Amino acid sequence: MIDEEHFFEGAEKRLEVDFLETANNDKRGLLNIPRKKWEEFLATVNCLIVSESHTDSFHSYVLSESSLFVYPFKIMIKTCGVTTLLECLDLLIQYSQEVYLRVDFVTYSHKSFVNPHLQHPTYQTFDTEIQMLNHHFNGNGYTLGPMNGERWFVYVADMTGSPSTKEEAEQTIEIMMTDLDRKAMSMFYKNDEDTADISAQSGITAILPHSLIDDMMFEPCGYSMNGLHRTDGTSPQRYYSTIHITPEPGFSYVSYETNLPVDSYDDIIRRVLHIFKPGHFIISVFADAEALCGESNKSYDCKLPGYTRTIANTCEFVGRRSVTCSHYSSIHADTSRENQLRAQ
Amino acid sequence: MIDEEHFFEGAEKRLEVDFLETANNDKRGLLNIPRKKWEEFLATVNCLIVSESHTDSFHSYVLSESSLFVYPFKIMIKTCGVTTLLECLDLLIQYSQEVYLRVDFVTYSHKSFVNPHLQHPTYQTFDTEIQMLNHHFNGNGYTLGPMNGERWFVYVADMTGSPSTKEEAEQTIEIMMTDLDRKAMSMFYKNDEDTADISAQSGITAILPHSLIDDMMFEPCGYSMNGLHRTDGTSPQRYYSTIHITPEPGFSYVSYETNLPVDSYDDIIRRVLHIFKPGHFIISVFADAEALCGESNKSYDCKLPGYTRTIANTCEFVGRRSVTCSHYSSIHADTSRENQLRAQ
Repeated sequence: MIDEEHFFEGAEKRLEVDFLETANNDKRGLLNIPRKKWEEFLATVNCLIVSESHTDSFHSYVLSESSLFVYPFKIMIKTCGVTTLLECLDLLIQYSQEVYLRVDFVTYSHKSFVNPHLQHPTYQTFDTEIQMLNHHFNGNGYTLGPMNGERWFVYVADMTGSPSTKEEAEQTIEIMMTDLDRKAMSMFYKNDEDTADISAQSGITAILPHSLIDDMMFEPCGYSMNGLHRTDGTSPQRYYSTIHITPEPGFSYVSYETNLPVDSYDDIIRRVLHIFKPGHFIISVFADAEALCGESNKSYDCKLPGYTRTIANTCEFVGRRSVTCSHYSSIHADTSRENQLRAQ
Repeated sequence: MIDEEHFFEGAEKRLEVDFLETANNDKRGLLNIPRKKWEEFLATVNCLIVSESHTDSFHSYVLSESSLFVYPFKIMIKTCGVTTLLECLDLLIQYSQEVYLRVDFVTYSHKSFVNPHLQHPTYQTFDTEIQMLNHHFNGNGYTLGPMNGERWFVYVADMTGSPSTKEEAEQTIEIMMTDLDRKAMSMFYKNDEDTADISAQSGITAILPHSLIDDMMFEPCGYSMNGLHRTDGTSPQRYYSTIHITPEPGFSYVSYETNLPVDSYDDIIRRVLHIFKPGHFIISVFADAEALCGESNKSYDCKLPGYTRTIANTCEFVGRRSVTCSHYSSIHADTSRENQLRAQ
């Protein structure tokens, strides 16, 4: 049993909201909102900005608990621990109206928590989270994965029902890893090395090329990274990746996410698994109908060496996008890894 | 509001169990079990045999609440109302052992009930149903569809984990319809006509050709049918279909199911919708990896004239089979049909 006092819930609550213009504005949309206002917004969630990076296309904030990315017509925020992510909704809607935007598509998701009873009341069941979201939007919640096991919750509200008029179809992969390799995690405890070395030494900088890395080690352990990416050496940085690491044995958790448009996630998944060596993980892929990766359930080769896929669930939001959530276990996870933990 | 005293839960609990031989027996497997033993088995569920038909390949029983089909190595039973379907598990396992079979693959499913609180305690939540199933098997439960709306629950236990050695890949479609057309339902109230006329007049006999029909009208209303089918005019009857109709306005419900192997369900779906004209329906398709219909989410053209598909969920039991559950609403359902009901 893990001492609840020392427990940390690594799994993030994740909110992504797409907006549409209501007037022909300057195309900067949410980028017009100053940092001071994001700080007020983040105060409702109980977290702080610890680092920021900007490109012409988007703003990236590393937070005290995870990350915020702001695009002209989209926001993606994920926050871990016992943050109160949905408390930001009032301000988010207010801010978006101030820059002449209206809500188009909302997704809110998280992996099942290890200790839901340690969360604030709204976040102890997905039903209460759905209720809170439906104070603002008109959507539905889904459970992907077994009701009696580790699972992934996703809420979706399609507020316009119209196929997107976006210039580019979007796609996002999230890899949510648990029961991580002790040796791989040992690197993410604070010591005298600087974090630049860690991102290079760990292999994190090599996951995606053409990257700017904004990363942070936490005391006494833990690591966050926002990457800013382009599809080749010359195009502008328009895509993000983000990694969050809770290295402690007993509740180790690492998440990897990127919205880089690739035709297959095979290489990304291979590199991520090679670095972190999880015992178990969930991969979720969101893909617009016209995304480069194809249908979300065909976006990578589901046969991953050393792992068995136990279940795959797809939810299709007809005409807009689909999400597929697949569960994997190391073929060694139930023997060597658990023995390793017991031997501590 | 519907008077709870007159309410009837049309949605069936459905159990399908596939078995493997443990000894080289006479290939008749469960067909060796006499009717008297099935009557004892059905007593645990609280229903009775009201009609039976046999072919060389399987036995078909129309029940006081829905249907039972027995194949040499498979049983499918669905029971509606407040029947206690899972109470049959002890006897089912005992009977199967007596004929030298062991459990291979179990699925248990039902649409969300209109009035779960009127069910026996085990059936009031899917969690308690999963617990009861896991006294006998080792499986997981899934929710397909919105947590805050009409949805479909499915439990799956793969007890051998081995790809099937069956002679023929299997596939099953279920169409679960609610808010049905009043005129279409008027035919399923008992009057002086005999049921042979009703199955022909309604169009039910024309859904699948090459059929034997075993059907039954109930007092004062309601209809059940078991069909025994072959793929052409000369091959033996090896496949079933079954229809159950609760015609009362306010809680009307019709289910259609068949395991006939077709390469596309387009014709079957079109004929079923033409007869019953539901306001809303769910289609679930189970398909083995090698089924004739292809992947469960590609087994029919999902664009159905007059209906919008709101959500589709797929659950893939890796290497064995997949199930897709799609939700449809009539484009008129929220206006004309509800007004029609309010005008009663």
